[in-house]
Amino acid sequence: MGSASLHTPIHSVQIDLADRSYPILIGQRLLDNPDTWAGLPQAAAAMIVTNEVVGPLYAQRLAAVLGAHYQAVHTVVLPDGESQKTWESLNRVFDALLARGCDRKTVLFALGGGVVGDMTGFAAACYMRGVPFVQVPTTLLAQVDSSVGGKTAINHPMGKNMIGAFYQPVRVVCDLDTLATLPARELSAGLAEVIKYGPIYDLAFLDWIEAYLPDLVVGKPDALAYAVSRSCEIKAAVVGQDERETGLRAILNFGHTFGHAIETGMGYGTWLHGEAVGCGMVMASDLSRRMGLLSAAKAERLKVLVAAAGLPVKAPVLDPANNVARYLELMRVDKKAEAGEIKFVLVTDEGRAVVQGAPDSTVAEVINACCA
Amino acid sequence: MGSASLHTPIHSVQIDLADRSYPILIGQRLLDNPDTWAGLPQAAAAMIVTNEVVGPLYAQRLAAVLGAHYQAVHTVVLPDGESQKTWESLNRVFDALLARGCDRKTVLFALGGGVVGDMTGFAAACYMRGVPFVQVPTTLLAQVDSSVGGKTAINHPMGKNMIGAFYQPVRVVCDLDTLATLPARELSAGLAEVIKYGPIYDLAFLDWIEAYLPDLVVGKPDALAYAVSRSCEIKAAVVGQDERETGLRAILNFGHTFGHAIETGMGYGTWLHGEAVGCGMVMASDLSRRMGLLSAAKAERLKVLVAAAGLPVKAPVLDPANNVARYLELMRVDKKAEAGEIKFVLVTDEGRAVVQGAPDSTVAEVINACCA
Repeated sequence: MGSASLHTPIHSVQIDLADRSYPILIGQRLLDNPDTWAGLPQAAAAMIVTNEVVGPLYAQRLAAVLGAHYQAVHTVVLPDGESQKTWESLNRVFDALLARGCDRKTVLFALGGGVVGDMTGFAAACYMRGVPFVQVPTTLLAQVDSSVGGKTAINHPMGKNMIGAFYQPVRVVCDLDTLATLPARELSAGLAEVIKYGPIYDLAFLDWIEAYLPDLVVGKPDALAYAVSRSCEIKAAVVGQDERETGLRAILNFGHTFGHAIETGMGYGTWLHGEAVGCGMVMASDLSRRMGLLSAAKAERLKVLVAAAGLPVKAPVLDPANNVARYLELMRVDKKAEAGEIKFVLVTDEGRAVVQGAPDSTVAEVINACCA
Repeated sequence: MGSASLHTPIHSVQIDLADRSYPILIGQRLLDNPDTWAGLPQAAAAMIVTNEVVGPLYAQRLAAVLGAHYQAVHTVVLPDGESQKTWESLNRVFDALLARGCDRKTVLFALGGGVVGDMTGFAAACYMRGVPFVQVPTTLLAQVDSSVGGKTAINHPMGKNMIGAFYQPVRVVCDLDTLATLPARELSAGLAEVIKYGPIYDLAFLDWIEAYLPDLVVGKPDALAYAVSRSCEIKAAVVGQDERETGLRAILNFGHTFGHAIETGMGYGTWLHGEAVGCGMVMASDLSRRMGLLSAAKAERLKVLVAAAGLPVKAPVLDPANNVARYLELMRVDKKAEAGEIKFVLVTDEGRAVVQGAPDSTVAEVINACCA
């Protein structure tokens, strides 16, 4: 790598998945550094997939540096936002690939946040039955969570991320400098996924997040560098043990069962994914407490932290007439549900997560308490 | 297995792909035999995906026998035909799965021909990022080729099978009795894929096909049983060596480069896939001859066999003004193409296949000669 003496050192976290292993590069000035892109699969063409917000900021720079490796570098710009994570947007990528005559060695580059990453990954999984792709996450949420681990998907009107594939990128490039242009609301949304790793896996990291939250919410590079690195290390450890979520990996869904219900119920994009997850963690903590797994003090501590990160801690009413029933209905189509029983990721005082069911009546208490 | 003394014995061909290995069961009376369905993944629900032609014939029988294994057996009926191999049809499967509250253990059953199999397999690959599925092919083409080996896809207006996945079924059940209801045109279409295995892999099988073609075209069970078994054995041997078509597997596309151009150029469903492949093999043989790989006598022999199977040997004109250019344009988006160079599967006098490019001028001669 080139000189980075004035910057955070480049950190590399390896995802170990046999022949699907790959590195996550984390550092500053990665985007323009030719070394960042060395050794990728050879191909005649590359296709940058981005959105209308991120594209104008970084697509030309990325295209310029990729031009050294590929004869042709194409770009397709998708509309922005969770409500656009649809088949129609995905099909724009296929249209562009076919219109440009892209073959099955073409390398896709996902330049943007979680929506761009999820769609580009799914497009790569499906185009000609699979082409290589690289994640270039430009939001905190994508850098600490969604770009890592190979979960790709689009939404269905009846449920979030229902149509997708496990399909690993060949590299993840987290250029911390791209976080400088991130709106405060998106930074907060990303912090939800950072906070998540504490209660499920690493209480020492939770202590660190509490201590450095003031630095994180204003986007201090050193603090963000450590938050991204440690989050990726934990995700790598979990995904390396359970790529296809047959067990352990489900703990990464802490806050997501309630969170997905909020996103689907409010309409995709009304709340940011990270906002829904933040509130969902507060709800899951409250459920953990009511199930006797978590002390009231620990549940309160998490709620305070989520609020301090700039995230909502009061849950939205999804249906004024039948709010509890609506939440339950939405959660029953969650991918963790089995034979109609909702599975929750609950956390313990010892900093461990368990995946289990809960009585509807207890879940109803949580919904009523958190919406009040 | 139950008694089958009056019938063709049940034959099992194994696809060896490590943890994705599975058997192909071939025989009569398999559909109603409970043993056929023993040992499949356990789940609360099964979903039979079929079409409006095959569904009325067999869906109730299959649902009845699966009822012993699953609490709920749902059925979704898709429109019939290659022109329906679209996202819209695929989405009907997702809609049905979500409307029925199907979880990520749900087992899908593809009951029908190649279109149903390709779409059900792709739906299984994508629903909640992957659920198990079983192929129950009811056409000769699906039994000898498309149901085996894990290629799943839908079409794009610009190219056939462009959007899909390599995703293996957990079992393939070829009930030869279902071929009794097959229209003659569909039987002929299936014979194209049977004939294919001869010139690319097994000249002795080509001799057998020539000898038994009169039995095959009238659907004699004994002849069909051997044709299905030997075809599956060859396909299993090839796929077992190269699941994701990084090399050898491409030989199974003999006749398909020209064939896909015909299908896309004529509009999906105008010619049956097998008809396009039959004619495509004649064109690929002619190209093999012009490239000095195949004798004129061997090329003529294959053409006679294709015609005797009831398949077209004269290629359609896709564009009266620019026929050669249109063929070339369509073939350049073939999945085997690399950096704009079309790759053809050519055959030799020794019964081997090679994948290589050819001068546009020679390809033009083939197109002009075969369309004349």
